[in-house]
Amino acid sequence: MYSFKNDYSEGTHPRILQALVETNLEQLEGYGLDRYSLEAAELIKKKIERSDVDIHLLTGGTQTNLTALSAFLRPHEAAIAASVGHINTHETGAIEATGHKIVTVDVADGKLNPSHLRDVLDAHTDEHMVKPKLVYISNSTEIGTIYKKNELEQLRAFCDENNLLLFMDGARLGSALCSKENDVQISDLPWLVDAFYIGGTKNGALLGEALVICHDSLKDDFRFYMKQRGAILAKGRLVGIQFLELFRDDLFFELASHANKMADKLKEELAGAHISFLTDSPSNQIFPILPNAVISELQNKYDFHIWEKVDAENSAIRLVTSWATKEEAVAAFIEDIK
Amino acid sequence: MYSFKNDYSEGTHPRILQALVETNLEQLEGYGLDRYSLEAAELIKKKIERSDVDIHLLTGGTQTNLTALSAFLRPHEAAIAASVGHINTHETGAIEATGHKIVTVDVADGKLNPSHLRDVLDAHTDEHMVKPKLVYISNSTEIGTIYKKNELEQLRAFCDENNLLLFMDGARLGSALCSKENDVQISDLPWLVDAFYIGGTKNGALLGEALVICHDSLKDDFRFYMKQRGAILAKGRLVGIQFLELFRDDLFFELASHANKMADKLKEELAGAHISFLTDSPSNQIFPILPNAVISELQNKYDFHIWEKVDAENSAIRLVTSWATKEEAVAAFIEDIK
Amino acid sequence: MYSFKNDYSEGTHPRILQALVETNLEQLEGYGLDRYSLEAAELIKKKIERSDVDIHLLTGGTQTNLTALSAFLRPHEAAIAASVGHINTHETGAIEATGHKIVTVDVADGKLNPSHLRDVLDAHTDEHMVKPKLVYISNSTEIGTIYKKNELEQLRAFCDENNLLLFMDGARLGSALCSKENDVQISDLPWLVDAFYIGGTKNGALLGEALVICHDSLKDDFRFYMKQRGAILAKGRLVGIQFLELFRDDLFFELASHANKMADKLKEELAGAHISFLTDSPSNQIFPILPNAVISELQNKYDFHIWEKVDAENSAIRLVTSWATKEEAVAAFIEDIK
Amino acid sequence: MYSFKNDYSEGTHPRILQALVETNLEQLEGYGLDRYSLEAAELIKKKIERSDVDIHLLTGGTQTNLTALSAFLRPHEAAIAASVGHINTHETGAIEATGHKIVTVDVADGKLNPSHLRDVLDAHTDEHMVKPKLVYISNSTEIGTIYKKNELEQLRAFCDENNLLLFMDGARLGSALCSKENDVQISDLPWLVDAFYIGGTKNGALLGEALVICHDSLKDDFRFYMKQRGAILAKGRLVGIQFLELFRDDLFFELASHANKMADKLKEELAGAHISFLTDSPSNQIFPILPNAVISELQNKYDFHIWEKVDAENSAIRLVTSWATKEEAVAAFIEDIK
Repeated sequence: MYSFKNDYSEGTHPRILQALVETNLEQLEGYGLDRYSLEAAELIKKKIERSDVDIHLLTGGTQTNLTALSAFLRPHEAAIAASVGHINTHETGAIEATGHKIVTVDVADGKLNPSHLRDVLDAHTDEHMVKPKLVYISNSTEIGTIYKKNELEQLRAFCDENNLLLFMDGARLGSALCSKENDVQISDLPWLVDAFYIGGTKNGALLGEALVICHDSLKDDFRFYMKQRGAILAKGRLVGIQFLELFRDDLFFELASHANKMADKLKEELAGAHISFLTDSPSNQIFPILPNAVISELQNKYDFHIWEKVDAENSAIRLVTSWATKEEAVAAFIEDIK
Repeated sequence: MYSFKNDYSEGTHPRILQALVETNLEQLEGYGLDRYSLEAAELIKKKIERSDVDIHLLTGGTQTNLTALSAFLRPHEAAIAASVGHINTHETGAIEATGHKIVTVDVADGKLNPSHLRDVLDAHTDEHMVKPKLVYISNSTEIGTIYKKNELEQLRAFCDENNLLLFMDGARLGSALCSKENDVQISDLPWLVDAFYIGGTKNGALLGEALVICHDSLKDDFRFYMKQRGAILAKGRLVGIQFLELFRDDLFFELASHANKMADKLKEELAGAHISFLTDSPSNQIFPILPNAVISELQNKYDFHIWEKVDAENSAIRLVTSWATKEEAVAAFIEDIK
Repeated sequence: MYSFKNDYSEGTHPRILQALVETNLEQLEGYGLDRYSLEAAELIKKKIERSDVDIHLLTGGTQTNLTALSAFLRPHEAAIAASVGHINTHETGAIEATGHKIVTVDVADGKLNPSHLRDVLDAHTDEHMVKPKLVYISNSTEIGTIYKKNELEQLRAFCDENNLLLFMDGARLGSALCSKENDVQISDLPWLVDAFYIGGTKNGALLGEALVICHDSLKDDFRFYMKQRGAILAKGRLVGIQFLELFRDDLFFELASHANKMADKLKEELAGAHISFLTDSPSNQIFPILPNAVISELQNKYDFHIWEKVDAENSAIRLVTSWATKEEAVAAFIEDIK
Repeated sequence: MYSFKNDYSEGTHPRILQALVETNLEQLEGYGLDRYSLEAAELIKKKIERSDVDIHLLTGGTQTNLTALSAFLRPHEAAIAASVGHINTHETGAIEATGHKIVTVDVADGKLNPSHLRDVLDAHTDEHMVKPKLVYISNSTEIGTIYKKNELEQLRAFCDENNLLLFMDGARLGSALCSKENDVQISDLPWLVDAFYIGGTKNGALLGEALVICHDSLKDDFRFYMKQRGAILAKGRLVGIQFLELFRDDLFFELASHANKMADKLKEELAGAHISFLTDSPSNQIFPILPNAVISELQNKYDFHIWEKVDAENSAIRLVTSWATKEEAVAAFIEDIK
């Protein structure tokens, strides 16, 4: 049984494991203040070409989202998100558990634009309603789509005009940035959003997300918020060493490129076989629509999510590729489909 | 510079790293539902001789405390803790951030007894006050002392009579159970407390705490609480594999015994040099009282916390040993003191 | 300028003021434990023909909703509500501020039915999502519609089958129960819902909502929750005396009937003038659709909310009548429309 | 049975009731935006001689404390309070329920001074601990003592130097300001504290506290916080009219002076009878120490709290006087004691 179920089925890239082995017995500072974590932060600053950001290493996406949003918002302020947004659907109410409402917008492609935000602001007029304050976007989105640079610029402009914060969930940022359709550089991001994170867990690390806080007003005391939410590891080195390895050269991007290549291959071949897709996703998640009988057959050999029913006889499935996806597995899957 | 600053300065025991290497490229279920995590839970159940408990693997102490306590308490219910309790002093108000008050008791040795609890209950009489509901104890405590079996039995009886829950923070449970003065078996714990956790981070793991929920009423839906607090790792295998290795044989206890042995050695030699201690701690944390000038001298070669000022010329320092503490370092420290 | 803006523009029914005057200098217990508050609770129990419910007097709707829902739900549990539900739109995220997500359903008439609930349950399948637990309905709804008895019975049955709680926001319960189309008795309610409240503020009291907790499992320690949320008045008598007066005889129902009568009159006459309505509301809120020019004209003499734009030239306005609405004002308004 | 149990046993001063009667049928704006509420705010601004403060009317002390503190603090920030502080002892963890820790200081007279604050700051050094940010004081305190002007000035200076906020709970501010020992003017307060409230409930109103926000950084969006906590009454006029009446002339101070006079009388006569007191309280709460047998006897005719056991044979009781306390009752009590 080969799994296309997600991008966190395997452990970590061997180079990362090797780095953990090599540093294992060094005595280091705790709580993410060790030299590897600090060096990783410096390295990321270089990659994004901004020395004035703050970088914090956390362990997972839900933890990063809840820690950041509860730190950035006042009690009456709300996040705006696409209704498919991870914070809205798959975090067990983590944001609400910190006291904040999520105002949602239904969007077919999982992406927010200024028109959506305008509608939300227009509907929130006084103190009987929450105050929308932070725009939460995911790149790539939960349904595999990505934001183009001009789309981000438009969001940025709208947020500036309306005193909103723009936050990017980058759990799958590597895949977005390495997409064939992408025109955004990682060094563009600090100019486009107020905070974002670089997902390690879904791009080859054992665990770890690097939160980049760009807007000065959001920086103060962030380690207090992290500690309060249980987000500071005693052995913070565990995350620091991994990000150091991912960004020491271009490993981070190589891993994402491989994942995308595998997905592109699948997409291309499936499309060639006249299979249609739920969304036009140029990243490492694709959503082919297949007859239910075919799906049943495939489930004997492959593990994947059935995403949603399309009609009585067809459903969309989700195939996710990763840094570790094997070319042979992709070839075999295509073979089996055909 | 050798560090006696804490028990999480090094990475992890080489056997654990080896286990991670060996399983690294297997495709496994996410979110702690992989076979290693499940097997680790079964193994722990065997060690504690109770098959009817629920076991969950989390990443750190603060996260475990806040997830468990907020799951176990109703909004108006409070925890009772020693004022030196970790949840009261060193978790940035994590428990309060989930909505719950901590009612504290000042105790010289860091340990609660029924008389303390009686006083708290007597002072909380009606709906204008919180309702004390959960007794939080640490074993070993934050100042290195440990609970004897009869002390735990007395707490258990009091809690039963007064409808209180008893929760044990086991961040340093290994050291407590392997102390020369200990008379508690790990298999006693499920009978003595309603929930406890087995600390991995401070006893040789990279990260990880195994929460054992003993009382049936506390078990339901616990994975929802974990997810909501960001406490479920996508690659839950990372913690599962470590606990599997720690409990496959007696590695967990061997590591703790080594730490204790190193601390005992330090204590014995310092006592032999007529140095007194802030607390009588039979575990891996000791608190010798030294002249400030001596402390300054030692700081040139060793890293450790200055715990508290004792008088104008003397202070207590904290020395912590671990599974990785080297005998030579202990010997050198003793030599230097002398 | 006469106001049809809401049902809380005036003070209180003169009989209530008289009761406050007569009891003013008596020394009474504080915190709602005075004999008037206790007597009011007994009286309500008689009216609803159930002696085994718990009754608590609070000051307003948002306070009652947030206190009750946060008391009834565990941290990972969510409320299900119509998207127009008051808790979702007009309470500044009060429910989320206590940690709970509201899962919403878009419904044209503001009313939930089992089919809506089925869809919500089907979409919430595991611990990555909140657990829908409490169904929040308003009667009358925020857009003036009311629940018929068989509709409530169907909701009750569905909730029983699916282990859900059913909560009725009764801010305008008087108007609902006195509607010409209503077939529900107040004594039916404890059998149909797990908790509900009887709105005083919008039906002639100065302030006050009487929360009726019907389900045994929701009763414990409720006064703790009230105190914690600032919902216990030192001079609880202020609410108790008012409810005593409202239910001493049928004053509560007489006031609601008057409000409805005034709304019916308006609706009948406007319909006679070929004016259509946004919703078919048989209670004290009606939503006629008028040309924008007419609305502007009316605003010179009357105060009311413009509810929503219908098309380029027409908007729906909201007219609310109350226990204090004057027949002459209604007649004048009709005259002016014509 | 005559009650000295508290200062909220009676309803309201007849003039206030009269004002409610006279305005009862006027149609007014809801939610505290009616002209009486606005006028009351203006009047208070004049009394305190500051036009640049924001004033909000809430219903009770716990509600005011929890709304203000949760609005003023960031998630990791804590309040510092005397351990007898109302927020610490008698609000069912309301502050913690909004997510904030209260750091307490044991003080015999219920009053904080800079030395206490210094100790708290010194003990909170990094992100593993909450960040003390707001100093909560009550005037008069929970044990009847009052702050002198120079004491407040010292606190103010310390807070300025250390970037702390100073908040005064004025549930019994009237009694404090009218104490024979007081040297603080109400117009001094906006210069001395960052926010305070003027208690109506315990000084002759039916309900109501007027929160005065002095520091600009605390003003924004406060009505959002109020709404979110259920602290905006639909008929806000109910509080506005009362404060208008209290401050139209000097009624507020006359009522407090009467309460103090009654307490002074009691204190003087009891002291004359060689009875000692638990605290030296120059306000409307006194704490005489009496033999238990005497207390039992008194309980047949008077209602009051037994405050605490002093020794095997004596206890301190609390006697509270109010605007409504009758001179004859005081005289009778003194007679009975003798």
